[in-house]
Amino acid sequence: MHRLLITGAAGGVGRVMRRRLASLADILRLSDITDMGDPAPNEELVRCDLGDPAAVKALVEGCDAIVHLGGISGEASFSKILHANLLGCYNLFEAARANGQPRIMLASSLHAVGFYRQDEYLDADAPLRPDGLYGVSKCFAELMARMYFDKFGQETAIIRLGSCFEHPRDHRMLSSWISYDDFASLADCVFKAPRLGCPLIWGVSNNDACWWDNSHVNYLGWRPKDNAGDYRARIDATVLRPEPQSSAALYQGGPFVDKPIYPDE
Amino acid sequence: MHRLLITGAAGGVGRVMRRRLASLADILRLSDITDMGDPAPNEELVRCDLGDPAAVKALVEGCDAIVHLGGISGEASFSKILHANLLGCYNLFEAARANGQPRIMLASSLHAVGFYRQDEYLDADAPLRPDGLYGVSKCFAELMARMYFDKFGQETAIIRLGSCFEHPRDHRMLSSWISYDDFASLADCVFKAPRLGCPLIWGVSNNDACWWDNSHVNYLGWRPKDNAGDYRARIDATVLRPEPQSSAALYQGGPFVDKPIYPDE
Amino acid sequence: MHRLLITGAAGGVGRVMRRRLASLADILRLSDITDMGDPAPNEELVRCDLGDPAAVKALVEGCDAIVHLGGISGEASFSKILHANLLGCYNLFEAARANGQPRIMLASSLHAVGFYRQDEYLDADAPLRPDGLYGVSKCFAELMARMYFDKFGQETAIIRLGSCFEHPRDHRMLSSWISYDDFASLADCVFKAPRLGCPLIWGVSNNDACWWDNSHVNYLGWRPKDNAGDYRARIDATVLRPEPQSSAALYQGGPFVDKPIYPDE
Amino acid sequence: MHRLLITGAAGGVGRVMRRRLASLADILRLSDITDMGDPAPNEELVRCDLGDPAAVKALVEGCDAIVHLGGISGEASFSKILHANLLGCYNLFEAARANGQPRIMLASSLHAVGFYRQDEYLDADAPLRPDGLYGVSKCFAELMARMYFDKFGQETAIIRLGSCFEHPRDHRMLSSWISYDDFASLADCVFKAPRLGCPLIWGVSNNDACWWDNSHVNYLGWRPKDNAGDYRARIDATVLRPEPQSSAALYQGGPFVDKPIYPDE
Amino acid sequence: MHRLLITGAAGGVGRVMRRRLASLADILRLSDITDMGDPAPNEELVRCDLGDPAAVKALVEGCDAIVHLGGISGEASFSKILHANLLGCYNLFEAARANGQPRIMLASSLHAVGFYRQDEYLDADAPLRPDGLYGVSKCFAELMARMYFDKFGQETAIIRLGSCFEHPRDHRMLSSWISYDDFASLADCVFKAPRLGCPLIWGVSNNDACWWDNSHVNYLGWRPKDNAGDYRARIDATVLRPEPQSSAALYQGGPFVDKPIYPDE
Amino acid sequence: MHRLLITGAAGGVGRVMRRRLASLADILRLSDITDMGDPAPNEELVRCDLGDPAAVKALVEGCDAIVHLGGISGEASFSKILHANLLGCYNLFEAARANGQPRIMLASSLHAVGFYRQDEYLDADAPLRPDGLYGVSKCFAELMARMYFDKFGQETAIIRLGSCFEHPRDHRMLSSWISYDDFASLADCVFKAPRLGCPLIWGVSNNDACWWDNSHVNYLGWRPKDNAGDYRARIDATVLRPEPQSSAALYQGGPFVDKPIYPDE
Repeated sequence: MHRLLITGAAGGVGRVMRRRLASLADILRLSDITDMGDPAPNEELVRCDLGDPAAVKALVEGCDAIVHLGGISGEASFSKILHANLLGCYNLFEAARANGQPRIMLASSLHAVGFYRQDEYLDADAPLRPDGLYGVSKCFAELMARMYFDKFGQETAIIRLGSCFEHPRDHRMLSSWISYDDFASLADCVFKAPRLGCPLIWGVSNNDACWWDNSHVNYLGWRPKDNAGDYRARIDATVLRPEPQSSAALYQGGPFVDKPIYPDE
Repeated sequence: MHRLLITGAAGGVGRVMRRRLASLADILRLSDITDMGDPAPNEELVRCDLGDPAAVKALVEGCDAIVHLGGISGEASFSKILHANLLGCYNLFEAARANGQPRIMLASSLHAVGFYRQDEYLDADAPLRPDGLYGVSKCFAELMARMYFDKFGQETAIIRLGSCFEHPRDHRMLSSWISYDDFASLADCVFKAPRLGCPLIWGVSNNDACWWDNSHVNYLGWRPKDNAGDYRARIDATVLRPEPQSSAALYQGGPFVDKPIYPDE
Repeated sequence: MHRLLITGAAGGVGRVMRRRLASLADILRLSDITDMGDPAPNEELVRCDLGDPAAVKALVEGCDAIVHLGGISGEASFSKILHANLLGCYNLFEAARANGQPRIMLASSLHAVGFYRQDEYLDADAPLRPDGLYGVSKCFAELMARMYFDKFGQETAIIRLGSCFEHPRDHRMLSSWISYDDFASLADCVFKAPRLGCPLIWGVSNNDACWWDNSHVNYLGWRPKDNAGDYRARIDATVLRPEPQSSAALYQGGPFVDKPIYPDE
Repeated sequence: MHRLLITGAAGGVGRVMRRRLASLADILRLSDITDMGDPAPNEELVRCDLGDPAAVKALVEGCDAIVHLGGISGEASFSKILHANLLGCYNLFEAARANGQPRIMLASSLHAVGFYRQDEYLDADAPLRPDGLYGVSKCFAELMARMYFDKFGQETAIIRLGSCFEHPRDHRMLSSWISYDDFASLADCVFKAPRLGCPLIWGVSNNDACWWDNSHVNYLGWRPKDNAGDYRARIDATVLRPEPQSSAALYQGGPFVDKPIYPDE
Repeated sequence: MHRLLITGAAGGVGRVMRRRLASLADILRLSDITDMGDPAPNEELVRCDLGDPAAVKALVEGCDAIVHLGGISGEASFSKILHANLLGCYNLFEAARANGQPRIMLASSLHAVGFYRQDEYLDADAPLRPDGLYGVSKCFAELMARMYFDKFGQETAIIRLGSCFEHPRDHRMLSSWISYDDFASLADCVFKAPRLGCPLIWGVSNNDACWWDNSHVNYLGWRPKDNAGDYRARIDATVLRPEPQSSAALYQGGPFVDKPIYPDE
Repeated sequence: MHRLLITGAAGGVGRVMRRRLASLADILRLSDITDMGDPAPNEELVRCDLGDPAAVKALVEGCDAIVHLGGISGEASFSKILHANLLGCYNLFEAARANGQPRIMLASSLHAVGFYRQDEYLDADAPLRPDGLYGVSKCFAELMARMYFDKFGQETAIIRLGSCFEHPRDHRMLSSWISYDDFASLADCVFKAPRLGCPLIWGVSNNDACWWDNSHVNYLGWRPKDNAGDYRARIDATVLRPEPQSSAALYQGGPFVDKPIYPDE
């Protein structure tokens, strides 16, 4: 691969993937709306507002593949969501269409299904149950991907990401955690597959506890290696067990289900 | 019911429902972005842009129930969709939340699943497959309804409308047609049910040919009476059979699947 | 059929079926723990406590078929349930086994699944969710029937009865009602089928509104004719709509889900 | 339609359809291995052994559509089945491919699933369970149809025929009967559909009792009108009820499941 | 956990868990109807007939959690089953309700589904198919657990136990075996889960051969470690292969399906 | 086992299994239509045309078990398929029936479902979708096995073989590969199971990538050990990635879906 674009490169997952995915391409093009520091020799840094169609079109030009981590990654007011996640998503797919349809790895989120209970086991066809405006915007992105695939053949891996951190931080993440290594190996599978299609992939490690069934994407050959269960004793010892009737114990989306609609400023 | 709001009252379905649903409430409040003619004695006419949050809040105030037909009802550029259908939908749900959560009957569309083939039989849990930006915006509205129900208990009947006309107009509508009478009787069921929840209802008559299974909403007791099959001979005699490989013969969304992305002006 | 036994013949359904099912057999043997009035010419009346194994054995002797309506038919203390419904059920199946295994039509109840919501649509394989001790005792009877079929070939039609009254009495019964005629025609199908097996049959009329799918027993050819929907206007006019969050509006079992465990005297 | 070919025109169903389907085309071409009597003015009679590839190719030439009733229609020795049903089926599909792929209505049989019990309710995806060599040959034909559709786009309606007679003849046919009228109206739907695909259709009337779910082909708009239940009283009065443990009472294929493998002469 | 109650502590599984689960609580309260030997320092021994409501209420008082192994654990006469397993189960749930609803780990049994064949693969929603009166009593207990959860929020882990022995003893146990270690680790998961709900858990080790799918309870993070397959060679060498048509080879319940109804003394 | 018959012993898989399965029986009887070289001490070599019923009957006589690899194992003209695979299969099942019904391990093929896409995940009940005449003949064999089981109790393990080679040879085989060791261990399970039934088993190794779900045959305890994923780097380095829209990348059957119907010579 010659040039791989990573959007949202200044974010939590973006900063890590900037290092981990470097080997996938000759050149990494990195974008964010904020400062990304200094470029490494094989890096191109592009400040870009995803809500600006022309800027996004220029950003995507010349790229062979895209890891789309950009946009707002938590609950926010509708005007912010509208700009970065709805308009931003449209801009990205249109830019890809104008530039030869490079394969996209799209970061969706467990908050697209956050209102399921933690004792429910979901497959890829479980109806969407977003837990807030952010979750709805992730559903929107998933559906745009599907439509661009059906209409134009644009290949996108929709990654419904669990909790991507260095290690799990609370009891809920014993189920939802995905390690950096497993995210990186997933990117490898996504970009090397002879044919990708437009699969929904649960972005989660090989945890003892889990809520999601990935068997429908066995064809990709991705086998996550890490296991949040290895951290169970540490979590039990250091993190308070959530109350049985709290959202943290009841819902896959955890505290997101309790968040209000944030007013526009 | 004291006051029923119908949005999109100047549209094709809206004009008909203005007459048919009048008996459901003491007062009909009607809104549209264009002229709606003169008010009948029990009517309140309100010109309103759904993209304007304050105007929508005022519009909803004092209403006991809402039939939401407003917004753009066909393929359009993203900026138009964004304003009327995405922002408009958010404004409506927020206005309802600020006004005691009147029950909503929401017009979604078969274009939320337009990429299914005509020989596929769908139940309510079939994954969404929108056939364009308009279809994606209808999916967005469905998901907003679901989230407002899960988070706030807002009851909404999501009507995935087929083709609502006086009679079926082509071979595809032999399956997708819903008559005005059946739409009106559905509204009656929706607003009289002791408890509604947030069901997905296929908005379709009792046609000989059909693609959709409504058995999961049998609890509402809605039994559509009309049958597009009664018009089959007339259609066969007057309308050209579509080519077997055309979108009109292949897809539930018909020609929508072939439409391009309309550029913003 | 020579002799048909109806247990619980003094109960609400029993009194009606005593007349309606008379034509099915030369002799009706009727039993109850209370007085059943005077016998008609073709009737044999037998006072019998179902908890008494010897009495039940004598009761069943010489019968070609059984309609088992006996036992306690509402929430009660566990000691009562234990005696009449658990022990009584065991006694009945043992008596049948000792007497050539006459075909049984067993009255179970919707309270075996009363904790499902009214917006859920159930097929015969939906896991049991009883709404009290009475409901659990009906599950017990269903499982005894299944076990006696698997082990001994005893044929039983398990009728999961809705609300069997002259006409529906409230909004919930618009879905759960079964008319006397439809119950009688079901008995006719059950006893005339060349081979019955051990089916679970939802005992419900052909109501506009319904929660249960009987398609798996289409092989019996039972087509209920009555429709609670014909009484909808009357119910709407004369019965208060239940509160949206009340058990009467939420659960298939209705107020049973709120009943306490009745203490033993 | 200009020319419709009916194979097996001298058989039980063929003789009836020769009259009923005449209005579908300008010319009926009729074929059988035995005598078919004299041609009507719009008929072409062709004696033809389906096992002869050249003869079948000539037979199909110039036809716009095919109703394939030919071949052996009951249990027989393997050499007979091999010639008429396996080789014959291959010859037919090859002849169609060489002649512009006219639409085919293919008579399969309930004996493709004859080993299911009569208390099982099947949809189109139920795995095949043939009840003899004849049943296996019908499965073979169904799979040839599917393969020619997937590979070459050949449209075929696979009709898994129940019992096609003037009226039902025994208790089993109360479920499996299809009337001549309903068969004819099905042919009408099959040949008029703008796009057919390659559906599996249960060939059965609108009987009170039934084992098969046709909802997946609702898109065709076929609504059978006749009901074997109208003959139930007559059957009960004139035909002996089968023994509960006999194949006639247990299996959908009835006595076919008991037939031996017929030796080749 | 301060005090853990184990009922049936003198039984086969009880004696083992008395040692293995000691570390879960400060105090083990052990009960049985027979002698349990001498108490260890952290043990409280209580002789108790589960059919005695007052005794059971006293037994449960002060306990934070319950492992319910008590009752009759094999086929028996109905009067014994009635007393120990039906009445006993009711007494236990009532005692728990009167004492703050401590979490319960309930031993059900594979005999609740013993009539399934060994070549059937079951998930948690497979309809119950008990193989005798004992099996029916285990179904009863499962349904009581479900009802107390739905009605009162009582959390219970329903463990449908396979064969819990030191090692598998015959060919059937190559599929049904659960090791002592795996049972103990399951108890650990059940009592440590922030929220348990009322799951059905197949109590079986990580055997090469298995009949049951536990993926729906992945959320608990239980990963059994032992494998009956490690004993396959030993079983093949030392235990006679069952006859292909014997219940030991055909049914999950094995020889239980052949047991008669034991008469009451 | 005294005598094990392997048909197709001169073929690719046959030559390997001749060595690997030798330990399963005292005597290996090997057959093929071509030369098989010299017999080892425990081998009986029999030249045999599977299309010759008498020869096949003699071949099977005295055998306790059969591994049926014979017949044509690739696309071919219909006359060849007819002789070796249709008639040959019938001859084999009849010969088994005449000789005490020895257990059969039948080699079917992924080409029975070759028209599924590579991003579809199939269970054993997925409807058949053969990719050519060869695939149809394998479906035929599967259905003959099922019918002989239902009618006569003949036990057959239907192995739907993926790609059985020393190691995977291209990207498609990263999913479809089965190693020789895993095939041999499967034979071991099949012939040692106390009761086999007539299962459909996907013949595939424990590959990182896979399309098929074998959980329904967990009861056999077969756990394949090899993993095509171990060869991924080598394949990536040495074999050209197929074009995304080629049959090699799209379909499970790979290039077979593009093959024409081969004419008879």
